Amino acid sequence: MPAGRFITLEGGEGSGKSTQARLLAEALQSQGHEVVLTREPGGTPGAEAIRNLLVTGDPDRWTAWSEALLVAAARVDHVTRVIRPALARGATVICDRFIDSTRAYQGAGRGLADKALLSLHDSAVGLWPDLTLVLLLDETEGLGRAAARSDGEARFEAIGGDFHARVQRFFTNLPASDPDRCRAIQASGSIESVAVRIRAAL
Amino acid sequence: MPAGRFITLEGGEGSGKSTQARLLAEALQSQGHEVVLTREPGGTPGAEAIRNLLVTGDPDRWTAWSEALLVAAARVDHVTRVIRPALARGATVICDRFIDSTRAYQGAGRGLADKALLSLHDSAVGLWPDLTLVLLLDETEGLGRAAARSDGEARFEAIGGDFHARVQRFFTNLPASDPDRCRAIQASGSIESVAVRIRAAL
Repeated sequence: MPAGRFITLEGGEGSGKSTQARLLAEALQSQGHEVVLTREPGGTPGAEAIRNLLVTGDPDRWTAWSEALLVAAARVDHVTRVIRPALARGATVICDRFIDSTRAYQGAGRGLADKALLSLHDSAVGLWPDLTLVLLLDETEGLGRAAARSDGEARFEAIGGDFHARVQRFFTNLPASDPDRCRAIQASGSIESVAVRIRAAL
Repeated sequence: MPAGRFITLEGGEGSGKSTQARLLAEALQSQGHEVVLTREPGGTPGAEAIRNLLVTGDPDRWTAWSEALLVAAARVDHVTRVIRPALARGATVICDRFIDSTRAYQGAGRGLADKALLSLHDSAVGLWPDLTLVLLLDETEGLGRAAARSDGEARFEAIGGDFHARVQRFFTNLPASDPDRCRAIQASGSIESVAVRIRAAL
């Protein structure tokens, strides 16, 4: 059994997950915890190679299932080589996106059955977060932030508006659907005010 | 429902699958059939990009599950963009390796549960061959042929001997375990004698 704590941050594009993950890592480190801050898809050389296939090319480059399987292949690498070893030595692992992003983007967004994605995760990955912080923001505000940033995930951001509405709805409903693991975090307002809400949720 | 016939060739390295797939395609074409001859992992630009991740690098580059998921991601692309469209227009599709290679290499060879691999295939791919020809050869003979050929799948061929024995055992047992779909083809002897056995099995 892992001894450390596994925390994931989830939410749509531009919800501020990456900034908040970094601030949370710094806050826990300043309290003397060993913290491993990582992200998906990616986090290992193999997973970054897979990520490169995922985030480049045309919006219709991959079918929904190919996309879900590539993400899962990268996740297995990341969990095996980084996350489980860190948890085993007692570190806190903070991960920017994990299984709930697959459920949101390839499930709610692209129409794959949530049950099939959960079954795949249980077989291939078999690790669930201890705590998932779901950063919630008005959809239009999030996409506006993401467009202003232009961070190389253009393939996902180029997909039409209804897709993002379905993704957003998944994240909005997630905390109530799994209240033991997930906490809703209101992500509008200043970076510091969101960070305060996150530290309070811990 | 697909109207065409979907035939896969399976077997260990050096069993002559690729040569026999080509000869079978030529024989069916000479009878006036439209034949699509393809192979896995690969068969589409996306699947070839994934194949490139799979067949290069160190033997321990990928965990068993990452490997199985990458193969499945490539297979979904291949089935969606090549195999299903060809079957829908009535063509015969001949594919060099398919799901049984995943069951052999990542299942029997690397220890993943066959049930989990079958469940993944049903969810993500959902297409089974009408006929699978399993080319059976003494393991040592097959690896000798593969080494003499040096065809760029060095990563798989570099894995130790017990792995290949488990793979071989899976293929040996496959025809009896699924007799409605699979036929055992004795693959020793001349190319032409094996081709005659395959045409007889059809």
